[in-house]
This record gives sequence, structure tokens and C-alpha cells, in this order.
Amino acid sequence: MRTELTDRFGIDYPIFGFTPSEDVAAAISRAGGLGVLGCVRFNEAEELDAVLEWMHENTDGKPFGVDIVMPAKIPTEGSQVDLDSMIPPEHRAFVERTLDELGVPKLAGEERVNAGVLGWLHSVARSHVDVAMEHARKYGQIKLIANALGSPPADVIDVSHRNGVAVAALAGAKDHALHHVEAGVDIVIAQGYEGGGHTGEVTSMILWPELVDAVGDSTPVLAAGGVGSGRQMAAAIALGAQGVWMGTYWLTAAEYKLGAHGDGPSTIQQALLAATSRDTVRRRIYSGKPARLLKTKWTDAWDAPGAPEPLPMPLQNLLVAQAHARISQADDPGVVAMPAGQIVGRLNAITPVEELIAELVSEYNDAVARLGKTV
Amino acid sequence: MRTELTDRFGIDYPIFGFTPSEDVAAAISRAGGLGVLGCVRFNEAEELDAVLEWMHENTDGKPFGVDIVMPAKIPTEGSQVDLDSMIPPEHRAFVERTLDELGVPKLAGEERVNAGVLGWLHSVARSHVDVAMEHARKYGQIKLIANALGSPPADVIDVSHRNGVAVAALAGAKDHALHHVEAGVDIVIAQGYEGGGHTGEVTSMILWPELVDAVGDSTPVLAAGGVGSGRQMAAAIALGAQGVWMGTYWLTAAEYKLGAHGDGPSTIQQALLAATSRDTVRRRIYSGKPARLLKTKWTDAWDAPGAPEPLPMPLQNLLVAQAHARISQADDPGVVAMPAGQIVGRLNAITPVEELIAELVSEYNDAVARLGKTV
Repeated sequence: MRTELTDRFGIDYPIFGFTPSEDVAAAISRAGGLGVLGCVRFNEAEELDAVLEWMHENTDGKPFGVDIVMPAKIPTEGSQVDLDSMIPPEHRAFVERTLDELGVPKLAGEERVNAGVLGWLHSVARSHVDVAMEHARKYGQIKLIANALGSPPADVIDVSHRNGVAVAALAGAKDHALHHVEAGVDIVIAQGYEGGGHTGEVTSMILWPELVDAVGDSTPVLAAGGVGSGRQMAAAIALGAQGVWMGTYWLTAAEYKLGAHGDGPSTIQQALLAATSRDTVRRRIYSGKPARLLKTKWTDAWDAPGAPEPLPMPLQNLLVAQAHARISQADDPGVVAMPAGQIVGRLNAITPVEELIAELVSEYNDAVARLGKTV
Repeated sequence: MRTELTDRFGIDYPIFGFTPSEDVAAAISRAGGLGVLGCVRFNEAEELDAVLEWMHENTDGKPFGVDIVMPAKIPTEGSQVDLDSMIPPEHRAFVERTLDELGVPKLAGEERVNAGVLGWLHSVARSHVDVAMEHARKYGQIKLIANALGSPPADVIDVSHRNGVAVAALAGAKDHALHHVEAGVDIVIAQGYEGGGHTGEVTSMILWPELVDAVGDSTPVLAAGGVGSGRQMAAAIALGAQGVWMGTYWLTAAEYKLGAHGDGPSTIQQALLAATSRDTVRRRIYSGKPARLLKTKWTDAWDAPGAPEPLPMPLQNLLVAQAHARISQADDPGVVAMPAGQIVGRLNAITPVEELIAELVSEYNDAVARLGKTV
């Protein structure tokens, strides 16, 4: 398969795989796509440094990328205590009561958990950028830095370009995409309503060609949101995208090891395998901004009468950080807190990444052949 | 262009064009697609009969279809007065107050308006079926009957088949599609979240291949919701559909004459030309079931604090029937009540149907050629 982006990145397929799992990211790059490691889970620069070193050792010299969450506006910084004081006690009480009612065990020793919070903050994101750039200079494998929240800051774009790293940014609307291009972004990731995590209201079928028409002459567009098969990849290329950006698809990869495990698939994977395309909701409860999540008893609780309105970012992150930690250490597939797109309905087996990619490519080729026969 | 459905219907392109306008429907059939006349606006069988006669005279013998709204469950029938008594007075007061605040003139003589209501009722829908079947027997041009709400009743399917008329039904979820096929429906129309009018939560990118996988071996699937260009048509075929079902696309056709007119485009067309892909909302206010509408001051009023919850179907239809009549006789593009899909963002000119179809086909061919070059 060949598009402008396969040439630019020296990859076999224009498949950009976003995942918080280094095992999955490395496997995607080894199999001919471009694995993009989500960095928000790393609170310390040293952790990320070690994982990038591991990525280097496990990718046979193939290119890969990092995804670092840099909010467009620098969020209110401050110590944990400052931010904590901005969270209404009723919100805390609701979270606590809900977890207890859902039977989610408390964490051992009730330690404070910052997981998934600090990564959203400006200074931490900047330390991630520094570490990634160091690795880009050292090994030359990091070829892409992506940002899910607005255009990256100008100096991040500059330093990335100086280190031969392309910059990508997610967009859910035309004005976002135009702003990215103006800011110097190299690749626009058009993420439709059906995607997992943060999304806008416009669906992929509408958004992808709209952004291609808006910026495609200067800037390649990656299609995100709703890609979980080779047919959807063919649809993406038909609609003018130069490749696909996939996240949910990898969550049931055999290499995905994050979260609680009993025997067999992890708790989260069990929940994903059971879900249909109708089992997601788009809510502000995960981060303060609308994000598509797996529908579970946890999201239901926030939809129930009497539940509080979610707080703005980053307070909502902070509010639910401990809850997410409690939930992810528990072992109940009915209560998980997990971003997932509507393609979750297609995830029906635990499959190695190499096979996942082979299936995409084979189905893509079939779809293109089928189209050819109609004209 | 050729798919199973072009062969079956003897049409040049697998483009099924749904429209309440006989002028547009006839033009679609003349141009090589299959025009499908929406019948809900006809309160009397005689009106429909006359329009079908006109269609016969203006389609050069080409096939066309009818869309008759037959709710899956037979709704509560009764006189206007019976149903009227089920509408809470606060709802009536809200509608009246809102229209006055929005400056929508009252109707001359304050006559009772049933427009758009009776067509939803069982007995009226059945009289539409009878008229359509009579025309199918007489001229042999009516080749399709479609239903937007559930599976058509068994006897309607039977009489259609006896008259050589294929039966299509809209589905927004897999279980709906399976139910249709079990009921004997010949074509499933998979309508995604982004479509105009009644839609489910699952988007076209996800829904189309899901329904193709569920029923495609026995029953062709038409892709609906989000098709407004040849690239989107190519995406539909890539995803496994046998053709496309388009509604919103024809609303700015030059032949579309419904609604108030000043100079140039009609009031509704002015509103459509101005809208972007983000200017639709999915609400229960049009019919009692979730339907995607153009976002206007009218939909905003129902979203404002203090607005009542919409009533169930058919009470909501009845509640807003007079309002819709008032609005459509007024001449304010800022206050229209109009189903429209997210592709409304692509409607930027008044264009004759023949050109609209030529553009679809030409862009489709380009997209297929582009795909071919990637492998």
C-alpha cells in the first residue's frame, strides 16, 4: 500500500496506531505501520525515558511516534492541594458513594493517586516533549509527535521540526484544522464523532472529506474515528485521507497488557469484547471535555438523576483520578472507565498485532478490487 | 456504474434519491437514479394519486419509488379531537409563545392544519399504499416502496411483491435490520447518526459495514446518512453497500419548489445554503422520535431552560403540525423546521438534479481511480 505518508515515513502501510501500551506500539511499527505511544500515563519523565529506550530496543530500527497531551491553553497549574481545593465536596462525595455502591474496592493504604492527571499538566507535558526529543536525536526513530488537544505550542513545533519529527494534531472541526495548519502542524488527524476519547459532533463520513477539502492541498489528513477494518480504511482513502489513525482497534491486541488481569483477557478486554457498537457514550466525565467512553455502570451512574455535572478540565481529571485507579485495579468488566470508539462492536477476539494489520491490509485490497469492478 | 441494484432496477447508477418533491424525484429518475417520492405530506389519497400520475407523465418510463411512513406499531387512531385532548396545555402554550417570540406570523383565518400529521396515521398510510399499488399495476414504473419506521406490515410486503414492487426499510441498528429481513424486506437502508430525519446513535462508518455483515448475504444494503458527494458514495461501496440512499442532498436542487419563496432560493434553501456541518441537532421535537434537524431559533427554543420535554409520537407531530405550517408559510431562514443531515455543510449552491448526479458519478470515478493507485 502506498500513499504520500508511507513514502514520507518509510512505512509499509499508512496505518498510525495510537496506544498507551509500548508492547502494542512496538508491534505496530514492527508490522509495517507507525506505532504512536500515548504518554499521558507517565507522571515522571524518567518512566517515559525508560519506555522509549525499550521501544528503541524492540522496534528493529523502525520509526514510531509519541502522543503528548498539550492543552491549547496552558491550564491552571499549581500544587495538587491548590487544584484540590477547587473541587466541590459534593462531587467528591458522589464519586466515593458511587464507587462504594458499585462494589469497587478501595486502594490499599488509601494512597493518593495522581495517575492520569499529571500527564495533562503543562510542565509534565513539556518534560515529555524534552525526553522524546532527546530520543529523536539519539536514535532517529521518533518521527512523529501528536497532540490531542488543540495546536501544539509554537516552540514545540519548532523543536520537533529541528529534530526531524513531524507534528500531528487532532481536529474535530474545520476551524480547528485550519488553526493547526496556520500553526505549522504537518499532519491533521480528523477525528469524527464515533471515535474513542475526545470527539466533536461531526461524524467521520462528513468530517474527513470536509477537512481534506479545507487543508488537504497543503497538509495530509489522517482519518480517525470509526476505523476498525480494511473496508473502513478504504473508505478513509476514498474520502481523501492519506492514511488512518486507529486507537480502539488495538485495545484487544494480544500484546495489550495494561489494566487488571485474572486468567485470560484483562478485565478491560473482557468488557471490550462484550460491547456492541451501541455500548459507548460521549460524556464529559472522563476529563471535563466530551469524550467517548465504553458504557458501563460507571458511566450510567453519572447519567442517573441526581448525579452532578462534570467539572471543567483539569478539575474533572483530578476528581476522577483516584476513581480510575480504584476501578482499574478492580476486576469487574461491568465497571470500567475506558475511552473507546463505536468500532468496539467489531472487537470480538484477542488477536496479535501482526494479524490485526494483515487483516486490515487484506480487506483493504479486497475493497479496492470490489470498487474497481463497479466502474 | 454497476452493482447488483442497478441490474435489478434497470437504472444507470445505484443512487436512490428520497425527496418530498415530485419535481426532484422525477428528475432523479430521468437522470439515471431512482427517485423516491416521500408521501407523508399527502393527507388525501387523491392528492397522491394526482402526483403519481404526474410522475408517470414526467419520467420517460423510468422506474421510481414511494416512501410511505408506516409505524411498526399501529399508533393510537382516533379523531383529531381525541388525540388533541392528550396534549398537555403547557406544551401548547410553549409552542404558541415561542412562535410569537420568534415573530412567526399566524396563519390566515387560524384554520386547523393537519399537514404532516395525517400522513403518519395508519389508515392514511394504508390508503397511500393502495394508491401506489394501483399505479404500480397500471404503469409498472413504481418499483420500490420504502418505510422509515420499522418493518412494513406483512400484508403490505405481500401486496408489494405481488405487484412487482421491492420493499425497503430503514434501519439504525443491527437488530432492526435482522427484523426487517425476517419480515421479508428486500432492501435494508442503513441510516447512520449523521443522517437527516430519524436516526440512531451509531454512525454510518460503523453502521453500514455492520449491517452488511449482518444481512448482506441475503439482502442488499443501501447506505444512508452522510452521502453528499461521489467520495462518500465510494466510501459506501467500499464499506459493502450496494448503493446509496440520499435525502438532504436534493434539498437545494433547482427543481425543489416546496416551502415559502421570495426571490431566488426558497426560505428553507437559504437556511440550508448557510448551514455548516455543525448546524444540525438530533432531537425529539419534530415527531416524538429522535430526528436530525437543521439547527435554528426554533430548535434552540426547545433546548432553552424551561422548555418542555417533547411528547411521544404521534402527539408531538400533532403538537407541532400547526407550528410547522406557520413556520413554512413564513419567510425567515432563521426559523425553519426542517430535517437535514450533517452533509448540509456541503450544500453551497442551487443546482439542477442532472448536474448533481453527474457530479456524484464523476467524483465517484475519480475516487475509485485514486484508490486503485494505492495498491
